[in-house]
Amino acid sequence: MAGGSRGCVTLRGSQFQELLDAKHNVLFDCDGVIWNGETAVTGAPEVVRLLKQRGKRVFFVTNNCTRPRENYVQKFSRLGFTEVAEEEIFSSAYCSAAYLRDVAKVQGKVYVIACSGVIKELQDAGVPVVEEVGDEEPGTTIYNCPLDPDVKAVLVGYDENFTFMKLAKASCYLMNSDVLFLATDPDPWHPLRGGRITPGSGSLTAALETASSRKATVIGKPSRFMFECIASQFDLDPARSLMVGDRLETDILFGSNCGLSTMLTLTGVSTMEEAQKYKDSESLERKDCVPDYVVESIADFLEALEE
Amino acid sequence: MAGGSRGCVTLRGSQFQELLDAKHNVLFDCDGVIWNGETAVTGAPEVVRLLKQRGKRVFFVTNNCTRPRENYVQKFSRLGFTEVAEEEIFSSAYCSAAYLRDVAKVQGKVYVIACSGVIKELQDAGVPVVEEVGDEEPGTTIYNCPLDPDVKAVLVGYDENFTFMKLAKASCYLMNSDVLFLATDPDPWHPLRGGRITPGSGSLTAALETASSRKATVIGKPSRFMFECIASQFDLDPARSLMVGDRLETDILFGSNCGLSTMLTLTGVSTMEEAQKYKDSESLERKDCVPDYVVESIADFLEALEE
Repeated sequence: MAGGSRGCVTLRGSQFQELLDAKHNVLFDCDGVIWNGETAVTGAPEVVRLLKQRGKRVFFVTNNCTRPRENYVQKFSRLGFTEVAEEEIFSSAYCSAAYLRDVAKVQGKVYVIACSGVIKELQDAGVPVVEEVGDEEPGTTIYNCPLDPDVKAVLVGYDENFTFMKLAKASCYLMNSDVLFLATDPDPWHPLRGGRITPGSGSLTAALETASSRKATVIGKPSRFMFECIASQFDLDPARSLMVGDRLETDILFGSNCGLSTMLTLTGVSTMEEAQKYKDSESLERKDCVPDYVVESIADFLEALEE
Repeated sequence: MAGGSRGCVTLRGSQFQELLDAKHNVLFDCDGVIWNGETAVTGAPEVVRLLKQRGKRVFFVTNNCTRPRENYVQKFSRLGFTEVAEEEIFSSAYCSAAYLRDVAKVQGKVYVIACSGVIKELQDAGVPVVEEVGDEEPGTTIYNCPLDPDVKAVLVGYDENFTFMKLAKASCYLMNSDVLFLATDPDPWHPLRGGRITPGSGSLTAALETASSRKATVIGKPSRFMFECIASQFDLDPARSLMVGDRLETDILFGSNCGLSTMLTLTGVSTMEEAQKYKDSESLERKDCVPDYVVESIADFLEALEE
C-alpha cells in the first residue's frame, strides 16, 4: 500500500464489525470522547456496556491529572456508565504514582507541583510526598527557605496554586542530577467555557525545564508509559487493541507509538481537516498522528454492536 | 584567515593599545563584569573613569530588569563609579519600555508579569500598565476573573510574585493575535548565594509561550534591540564599538549579532574552556559565541589606559 493512502478510513457496515472482531481491547480517552465536561457523549454509556457484553476489555486512558481514580468512578456512575471499575481507569496521576513506585523505585520523597488528584494517587501508592501548602513563615524567600534533603524526585502536573516559590524550590532540587524530573502530561493548555483557556501541565513543566536546564520524563500520552502500565496489569496484545481519542497529537500519536490501531472521534478537539493535513504531509513523524479510522462519534459503534 | 583560528585572543602590550585606539565606544555588561553583587570588580571604577578621560563613550547594557535606571545610578555611585549617568545605562526593563513606546507604539495597556523595576520604567515612559496586585475578591478564578479589553501587549520579566492566575490571565490575553507578546530577557536562571538558583525571565516566558502557543519577542541580549536602542540615541558605529561581557551565550552573541568587536572577561559566569569549545565547534552558529578577545578582568584595561 502506498504510504500516502493509509489512514482516515470511515468505517461502513461490515467493516466496523470486522474491526471489532479483530480487537479484544478498546482504550478510550475521556474528555471529548466519552464525555464533554459533565455531559456524556450520546450513546457512550451503551457503547461501553455492549463492548463489555461482547467480551471486550475496556480501558480509560486520560492525561487529566486533576482527579484520583475513585473520583473518576463516581463521575462515570453519575453520567450513566454503570459498570466502570477503578481498575479500568488509567489517569496520568495514577500512572505517575505507579512509575515512581514500580519503575523508578524512588527511595525518598517526591516534591509535588500539582493538584490534589496527584497527591492522592501518590499517597495511595505509598510514595512519600512533600507538598507545598503555602503556610511559610513571613519573610521566607528562595534564599532562606528550607529544602528537604530527602527529596529524590520532582513531579509537575496541573496546579492552579503554582507560584514562583514552588518553581524556585523545584529548580534547586533539580540541581542535583540524582533527583528525578517527572511530568504527569505534556498538555500545553485546556479550553475553558466562554472561550478562555487555562495553562496545562506542559506549560508549568516548560518553566521548570528552562530554569533547571533539564528535560522532564513525561508520563502521559503520547509517551508509551501509560500503555505499559495497563499492559503490566492486564497482559495486553497491542495488535488486538484499539485506541479511541479526540486529539491527534496525544491520543492518536500515543496509539501509533504503542503499536495499536487508532480511531479519531470528532466529538472533541481535532477535526477531519487536521487529520487530512497530517495524512497529506511528507513528514514521517506527522504520519504517526494520522488515525487508522475516523468516526463522527463513538455512538457509531452501536450499529455494529447491536447486530 | 582560517575560520578555526579566529577569536579568543589574549591581548598583550601594544595590541591592547591598538584596540583602544580603534574603538570609540565601550559597552559593558554589569553583573560579573563590573561588579559581583555589591562588590565592584577591582579596578573597574578606575577603568570607567580613564576610558571617559580618553574620550571614549561608555555604556552599560544589562539583562537584569529588577531595577529602574535611577536605582542603577545609585548603585554605581555606592560602588565607587562616580561619573555614571542614567543616560548611559541600558537595562532590559528600560529597553522594553522604549520598545513598547517607540517601536511597537502600543495603543492601549500593557499586562505586566515582572518586578517593580519594569513597572517603574513603563510608567516613566508613559506606557499604561495593568499590574497584578493580588487583591482579588475571594472566589475569583480564571473562569470569572475580569479581563481588561484595553490590554494590547503582555510583557514578561523576572517576577518573584509569579502565580498561576497571572499566567492564565496572560494566556487569555494572548489568544487575541493583535496583542503583542514581549519578554524583557531570555535568561533561564540566575545563580544565588549558597549554590542555589532562581528562575529567570526566560523560565516564566517559556511557561507562557507553551500555554499560548506563541513565541515572545525578546528585548534583552542576545537580540539586537538593545544596541538599536543605544544607537538611536547616540549614533553608534558598530565597527568602532566593543562589547565586554561575562556570558558567551548572551553578551558575546549579542556583540556578534550587532557587528561589534567582543571581549570575554573571566570574572563572571563563562570560562576560557567554554569559549574554546565554541571555537573548536564546527557549527557556524556556535562561532558567534566566540569572543574576539579574552581578559582575566577588565582591570587589564588599566595598563593600556595608564600609559
